[in-house]
Amino acid sequence: MGLADTRFEDRRRKLASELAAKRVDDMLVTRVTHVRYLSGFTGSNAALLVSKDRSAAIATDGRYTTQIAHQVPDIPAHIGRHLAPELLAEVKEGRRVGFEADYVSVAQLKKLEEACPEGVTLVPVTGVIEDIRITKDNLELTRLTEAAELATQALRELIDDGGIRAGRTEREIAADLEFRMRTLGAERPSFDTIVASGPNSAMPHYAAGDRELADGDLVTIDFGMHRLGFNSDMTRTFAIGEPSDFLREIYEVTLAAQLAGVKASVVGTSLVDVDAACRNVITEAGFGEYFVHSTGHGVGLDVHEAPSASVHGTGTLRENMTLTIEPGIYMPGKGGVRIEDTLIITAGAPRIITQYPKELIVL
Amino acid sequence: MGLADTRFEDRRRKLASELAAKRVDDMLVTRVTHVRYLSGFTGSNAALLVSKDRSAAIATDGRYTTQIAHQVPDIPAHIGRHLAPELLAEVKEGRRVGFEADYVSVAQLKKLEEACPEGVTLVPVTGVIEDIRITKDNLELTRLTEAAELATQALRELIDDGGIRAGRTEREIAADLEFRMRTLGAERPSFDTIVASGPNSAMPHYAAGDRELADGDLVTIDFGMHRLGFNSDMTRTFAIGEPSDFLREIYEVTLAAQLAGVKASVVGTSLVDVDAACRNVITEAGFGEYFVHSTGHGVGLDVHEAPSASVHGTGTLRENMTLTIEPGIYMPGKGGVRIEDTLIITAGAPRIITQYPKELIVL
Repeated sequence: MGLADTRFEDRRRKLASELAAKRVDDMLVTRVTHVRYLSGFTGSNAALLVSKDRSAAIATDGRYTTQIAHQVPDIPAHIGRHLAPELLAEVKEGRRVGFEADYVSVAQLKKLEEACPEGVTLVPVTGVIEDIRITKDNLELTRLTEAAELATQALRELIDDGGIRAGRTEREIAADLEFRMRTLGAERPSFDTIVASGPNSAMPHYAAGDRELADGDLVTIDFGMHRLGFNSDMTRTFAIGEPSDFLREIYEVTLAAQLAGVKASVVGTSLVDVDAACRNVITEAGFGEYFVHSTGHGVGLDVHEAPSASVHGTGTLRENMTLTIEPGIYMPGKGGVRIEDTLIITAGAPRIITQYPKELIVL
Repeated sequence: MGLADTRFEDRRRKLASELAAKRVDDMLVTRVTHVRYLSGFTGSNAALLVSKDRSAAIATDGRYTTQIAHQVPDIPAHIGRHLAPELLAEVKEGRRVGFEADYVSVAQLKKLEEACPEGVTLVPVTGVIEDIRITKDNLELTRLTEAAELATQALRELIDDGGIRAGRTEREIAADLEFRMRTLGAERPSFDTIVASGPNSAMPHYAAGDRELADGDLVTIDFGMHRLGFNSDMTRTFAIGEPSDFLREIYEVTLAAQLAGVKASVVGTSLVDVDAACRNVITEAGFGEYFVHSTGHGVGLDVHEAPSASVHGTGTLRENMTLTIEPGIYMPGKGGVRIEDTLIITAGAPRIITQYPKELIVL
């Protein structure tokens, strides 16, 4: 536990510094994912109070009495039924207590207000923990790399076992891939696995249905594994039998765009420029209007998180951020291509943690 | 589409009646599950405005232009980026607009307030759609029965194929069962499948780990399938090889409690009495302190929803409610048992939609 404890304490120290800068005395953390990030507690019901002096208190219910003592030996734990209100009730007069305005519902805020001691002020806070999470520490990078490598292994085994072939339904392939991820250690898929074949591959939001793969199809497989709190995300597009020249063309353009996006993903590049590096290749090839989404996003505790590489992106890449590069071309009625890696931004070239060939594979 | 449309219109009519009674002119529905319930739209990004005069407007983004026209031909659709704010901006002066206070975050409310036209009042509303959903219509009962029967079939096939046996890990069994559900039509499990063996079966919140099943174990399998928007939920406990007399005893007590709970689940019985009917059997056998959770809950669009059969339960059973009956006995260090069915409350005896033997099966 020793090493892990220090990491959680480091994260809380960063939060405490931000609070001081924002004139907030205590932060009431109620999003369970954030409680886990800041304490190491993996239970499904918890709240955490972190103070600007770096002290903390945690609350959970009676099911987790043993577990919280084991996982969080360094923070005093309250066991009860009303977690956040109970932590709030202990706060001393005169303090300003931040709450997570992006996750606390209007009804929950009312309960917090009722539990709030006289002279204590509730302050809406957004983005502070997200801003800390945007660069990953060593433990996170290890977990993210493990999840990405295990998910990639699942895809490799699926291909090697002939799991993607004409006559099989999209749903069967999704089930097969999810089974392999589960067996390799996933607690669940990071999102409903996408297996989009033939005309379905032209729909970026399509999941997996009863269509059978057929010769001449492109099939796009977008999948991820949730393991130990972290997610992975990758996409490959395959050909079932020899594709048409047109489908091969949009594949090659997408691949060139993806490689350009990866190349641009270095420290100091603006997120807008990463998007542009990738998008320009597609635009210049004449398919700009068919690349209907942004270039990429961070991956961590959430499968979609900051930063965002898009035309609306803000900020620049920093070391130890994660970023997907996932251009796509979607031609209604004809088919589509998407190729996606997850990268870790380093001092040099980005590290691709979803290592699998990107040249078009004909199955 | 014809029949389905009428059902969605019926649901909106019920909501409109409730609004009139609450002095709310329009209800802004932002929880995507509720938009689907009230309109039939299955996209991942949507908002719906239902007025007390039964008129409605729906909003989604550009990815779903075709889909919403197909799925919701009877409601005018706005296509844009800011869904709920755009619907709200169209509301006429003097109206009171309800919003879903249990799901709208404090940060989201701020955005709604900014978009709110002068003279329009935002009113927090809780529980109204949930109260309509608490009794199921025919479409819902059909979908829920299908999901439960397909999940039960997956368990049956798992057992028949020898999938639960000594030497296999909990995780492998969970992966196998989820694969079978996925192949039978699940979009995902309703929750992380629980396979809790030996001492792990004594932890009601345990999921599935690397422990290998061993002779003499009890193994509790709690699982569900999410399909077409609806969920299923059932639990069986099996013995791996001949169990000890003690484990057999707690199994028989749990089974007697479960049967008593099912028997009590008739129209007009209070939820507290359903809980008591089940709990008393366990208490009288001397294991009351080891039944650490409530007796059951509704199943529908959410895997846990109203009503709640517990010591804190409110209200009585009505026709076309769903309810799980899931007593358990958890003996730390020794093992545990849980047996769970999902019922539909009818004018007569409850209909069990998770039909699988409940006598102890020794594998």
